[in-house]
This record gives sequence, structure tokens and C-alpha cells, in this order.
Amino acid sequence: MTSKKEFIDPWSSDIPEDYLETIKKFGLEKFNVKDFPNPNIHMRRATVVAGRDLKIIIKAIKEKKKYYALTGFMPSSSKLHLGNKVTVDNMVYFQNQNAKTYILIADLESNATRKISYEQAKKSALEYFIPTYIALGIDHKKTFFYFQSENKKVTKLMFELSSRATLNEYRSIYGNTEPNRIISSLLQTADILFPQVHEEKMPGIIPVGIDQDPHIRLSRDIARREGENKFFLPSAIEHKFTPALDGSLKMSKSKANAIELPDTDENIETSVRKALTGGRETAEIQRKKGGFPDKCMVFELYKQHLIEDDNELNAIYKDCKTGKILCGSCKQNCIDHLKKFMRDFKEKFEKAKHQVSSIKFVED
Amino acid sequence: MTSKKEFIDPWSSDIPEDYLETIKKFGLEKFNVKDFPNPNIHMRRATVVAGRDLKIIIKAIKEKKKYYALTGFMPSSSKLHLGNKVTVDNMVYFQNQNAKTYILIADLESNATRKISYEQAKKSALEYFIPTYIALGIDHKKTFFYFQSENKKVTKLMFELSSRATLNEYRSIYGNTEPNRIISSLLQTADILFPQVHEEKMPGIIPVGIDQDPHIRLSRDIARREGENKFFLPSAIEHKFTPALDGSLKMSKSKANAIELPDTDENIETSVRKALTGGRETAEIQRKKGGFPDKCMVFELYKQHLIEDDNELNAIYKDCKTGKILCGSCKQNCIDHLKKFMRDFKEKFEKAKHQVSSIKFVED
Repeated sequence: MTSKKEFIDPWSSDIPEDYLETIKKFGLEKFNVKDFPNPNIHMRRATVVAGRDLKIIIKAIKEKKKYYALTGFMPSSSKLHLGNKVTVDNMVYFQNQNAKTYILIADLESNATRKISYEQAKKSALEYFIPTYIALGIDHKKTFFYFQSENKKVTKLMFELSSRATLNEYRSIYGNTEPNRIISSLLQTADILFPQVHEEKMPGIIPVGIDQDPHIRLSRDIARREGENKFFLPSAIEHKFTPALDGSLKMSKSKANAIELPDTDENIETSVRKALTGGRETAEIQRKKGGFPDKCMVFELYKQHLIEDDNELNAIYKDCKTGKILCGSCKQNCIDHLKKFMRDFKEKFEKAKHQVSSIKFVED
Repeated sequence: MTSKKEFIDPWSSDIPEDYLETIKKFGLEKFNVKDFPNPNIHMRRATVVAGRDLKIIIKAIKEKKKYYALTGFMPSSSKLHLGNKVTVDNMVYFQNQNAKTYILIADLESNATRKISYEQAKKSALEYFIPTYIALGIDHKKTFFYFQSENKKVTKLMFELSSRATLNEYRSIYGNTEPNRIISSLLQTADILFPQVHEEKMPGIIPVGIDQDPHIRLSRDIARREGENKFFLPSAIEHKFTPALDGSLKMSKSKANAIELPDTDENIETSVRKALTGGRETAEIQRKKGGFPDKCMVFELYKQHLIEDDNELNAIYKDCKTGKILCGSCKQNCIDHLKKFMRDFKEKFEKAKHQVSSIKFVED
């Protein structure tokens, strides 16, 4: 999963070979874009590669049956980046397809693993994370938000589920494990199943990066042992990473190679200017032989985040392949798109900040 | 710890040999009755055999410094018995020695391990367990009560502490372990340390049966890793079991050999009549050579629960040793004492039931 092979022809919805291996190895389902009405950018362009138990969600969407979508975030002092945006985009997709929407603030985990105080967690959730989710398209009026530390039902569910997990299973899923990991993943399972306790037994979809699949497997195993009469096993839709502009597999705050939400014009300029592209050794050769958009981080940004219109993306792809555009002007175009994205984002973010006070958090 | 050797001369405060081995093996402190002002019946008669970090508690008592005593119970449909009373008696002792008193209702654990619903747990706590504690001498006006499932600070503390525990430590303390056990013992540790978060950093004493010492060790290990600046390591006072009348090591609800709180006159009669005593083969031999009160379950009941006055107990001991009283009349005496105890208990219990509504449970 770490080679460059994974950046593929944007026009096919083929899944890269490395991911296909992963999918096979872990018993995932291949994602099939044709199954979903009005697929979003990540579905159409194979950022979404896999899933678990997707049929029941497809059925719920098509038959307008009750189901839910759930995600969560660890409140911290660092910002979200474009890589994190994929999950939010998928949440927005399901919300628009009538999913009951749940977003949880993982403050028990951020306190335990990152020593972030509950006050600090609350502050950054209210002042940054939730407005960001809203700015990216989440409708807060149609969303249940909760803090883990305030939701007693989740704590109760975690204890109830604890007798369904075994240490051997932790070992087989995670390799070595420790008590803090055990308790965190039991809590995550309780979070994932909570909507079925809060409302009623119903299917649910969890959008995650494919690296998070072990948590999904564990949650499904535990839910299964409670008896299928109690819970629908949670479904998942799983995406590959947004690569960093320097060519690293994954944007990462800790590696300072991420485009943040929002980011400064200066950082956008610097990051894009030094981005790894699919360019040739010289401009002359590139004009003659064309570039490699499939290997280009700038093109990857267009594809995953900046250019919604398929024809527009297609044109850039062809112009690169035929040597019609060179990396310099293409980078400038990307910078312009990114700056515009950030201006829009900031505007929506400022508006969203005023909407947070109307949210009533679920406490029980 | 399972042989009969442990029933010792009541006049010495020597600790039985088996318990001495346990104390040495697990690095416990021998309990020394002379250190404590106004020692209670269990301290004077070596039901209490050991402890951890007792000096800091003795100092707090003598210098009138702030400290706490804490215990908890699993709410269930079965009743408490005389064996459980030892812990309550020790709690009453420390409450009378000005300890801040905490009693928790382990409803998260009773739900996880015994499938007892939260409603059922609440009902049995309010209608039976708390009135029983009050009837046995706990002053509810001076006690903080809480339900685990309602106390968010305990949940938070449990997560905070989870990063301080290691799986190896669980293995070395408990042998094999499983996720439900890990999460339960992290919760217990959070319970044990909660008063230092609820009020201020202060020493605390946990009265337990000596079989519960592993939990104390784990809690101390975890608290130590938080840094001694954060918590006083919890102290413990540890007692041996109240044997069952049939001679089993330990009264046990599940083995139906317990005198319950309250118990019926019929059950008291039946249990005492068939009790294992230290009598001789025939009345004649016993009149001549005397009995063995040190091996007698009836005498053990006098010693631990029924006869507070040392002179009165001494007289019975001598009368038995010299053959002056035989088992039949002694058993009748024990039955009379037990029936009186139950009458008093029931009267106090009925009164206590009306006091429960005034309790304000700690929720945070």
C-alpha cells in the first residue's frame, strides 16, 4: 500500500493493485460506484475503494429506509487538512441521501492519549472543528453531535460490550495491544453502535480511511456477539489517502506536509511550488512527449478536491499528457484553485461559527 | 488460606499462620491493633489481619487531617450476609474517626458481568443496599453516594488512568485476563481515586477482604505512575473471611450457607442447629474434657458479630473449654443472639428506608 502504483487513471474507477490486495487480504468488498445514486467526487474517482456490508445501505437509500452515518474527531490544537476532508465529504454525501447523521467528539480519547483537557477539547470542538464540518457541507440542524465524556449511554454501552471482546481477538486484529488501546476500541465500538441505542435498531455506515478498517472489523465482531437481533452490524465505506504534495503517501499534520483547513496563501504557494509532479526533465522534452498526470500530486489535488467537473478535469489530464501545459502554469492554476477554495471555506466557516451556539448536544 | 488452622485463640491478636504467609508473599503489612484508637470488634479480634500504607491513615486520624474511606457494592437481587458486614463495620469505624465517607454503587459492573439492568440496580440500591448500610451504622448525612453510570468524572478518570496500566502487569497480578476484566479494574481504580478528584488530594483507606488485595495493588501501581504529586496512593485495611456455619471458609450467597441481612428465624434456627462446632464425640466426654471453641463456627459468630463485650466472650470461651456448657445450649444462645440482632437490624432498616429519599447522589 505504500508504492506509487496507487495513483491511477482518473477515468477508470479501477481500484489500484495494492489496494486490491488489501481488500482481498482483509475480506473487504470492492466499492462499486454504480450502486450509489448521485455518487460524489471520491466515489466517482476511486478515492473510495472498499467497504463492508454496503448492500444494506444501498437498499436503505433506494427504499428510503431509516439508516445512519457516523463519524467522530479527536479535538486537538492542530487543524484538519484536505486528507481529513474526504471523510467529511462522504458524511455529507450520506446526509444528503437521508442518513440520520451522528458526529461525536472523542474527548475521552484525546484526553487519555494526548493529554488534552476537557475544557480545551470543548473549546476547539466549538470554535474550530464543528464550524469546519459545517463549512464543508454538514447540516448541523440535521446532525446529532455529542461529547464522549458527556454521553452516559455510550459509557454504559461500552461496559455492556466489554464482555463480548476477547484478548485473542485484539491480538489477531492489532498484534500486540495494551489496556489503553483495549478501552479506546471498546469505546469506539460503543460510539459506532450508539445510534441504534439512541433511536432504534437500524443499519449504519461509517466512512473511514482504509487504515481504520481494523476498528470496523472489531466493532462488527463485537456487535455480532450481542446477537444480530440487537444490532445491525455496522457497514463501512473506506477510502485511500490523499497523498501529500511532496509525494508522501498520506497528508499528515505531524509531518508538516498537509494543506490545512484553512491554510494561508503563503503556505499554499510554497507547498504547491515544491510539489512532486509528473513532469519531464526539461520543458522541451515535456512539450514534445507530455507529462505523467497519474504520478502528479498537483493532479491528485485537482482530482480529489479542487475540480468537481469531470470535463474540466479531463481537459487538464489531456493537456498534460500531450505536453500542452507545463508544470509551472499548472501549479499556478492549482494555487489559484486552492486560494479560491480557502476563501470560500473561510467565508462559510465564519458563518458556521455563529450557528454552533444553536446545537443541542446529545447527553444521554 | 483454606485450612482450618486459621481459627485462632480469640484472646490473642495474633494473625493465623496461613494469613501470615499470604501477608509475606504479597508484601502486605501486618495489622497492629495498638496503632488505632478505639479499635472495633474486627480489629481487636484479628478479623482484620493486614493492610497497606496504614501509617498515613493512623497519622491522619491522630492529627485530625483530612482523609477518606471508600467502599462499593454490586447491586443485585441477592442480599448481603454477615460476611459482607465486616467491610461495612470497618467503614463505620473510619466514618466515626472522621473519614470523608464514599460509597459507590457498581452498576456499570453489575450490568456488564451480571446483566442487571440499570433500573433494577437503582431499585435494589435504594430499596435494599443503602438502607442496609445505614442500618449497620453508616451515617448517610455524612456520606457521598454515587452510581458509577452517573458519575462522569469517574469515567473520565478511568480513561486518563488507562494509559498507566500495562497488559504485563495484569498478567502478573491476575494471571490470564480479558478485556472485560481490564475495563472493570480500571473503573475500580478510578472509583478508588475519585475522592481525590472530587475533593482534594488526600490519603484514603479502602476496607476489603484479603482476597481483594490484587485490586488494591493494581490501583496503587496505576496511581503511582500518575506521579505521587497527583494522588496519595490508596491505603487498605484487609480482613479474613467470616466462615460459614457449615465450616466452609467463607460465607457465600451462591453456596446458600450464609446468614443473610436480614434472615428469617427459621433459617437462623436451621443453620445454627446444623453448624460445625468444636464439640466432643459425646456430651459426657465434653463435660469432662471441654470443647474446642477455636474450631467452632458458633463461637466464630459470637466473636465476629454477636458479642461486642470482651468479658462476655471470654466467659463463653472458658465455659466451653472447661466443659461447663455443651453445644446444644450454646447453639440456643447463639440463635437467641442472632434473632435479637435481626430484630434490631430490621427495625433500623425500616427507619433507614425513609432516609434514602434525602440522599443527593454525586453526579460529577
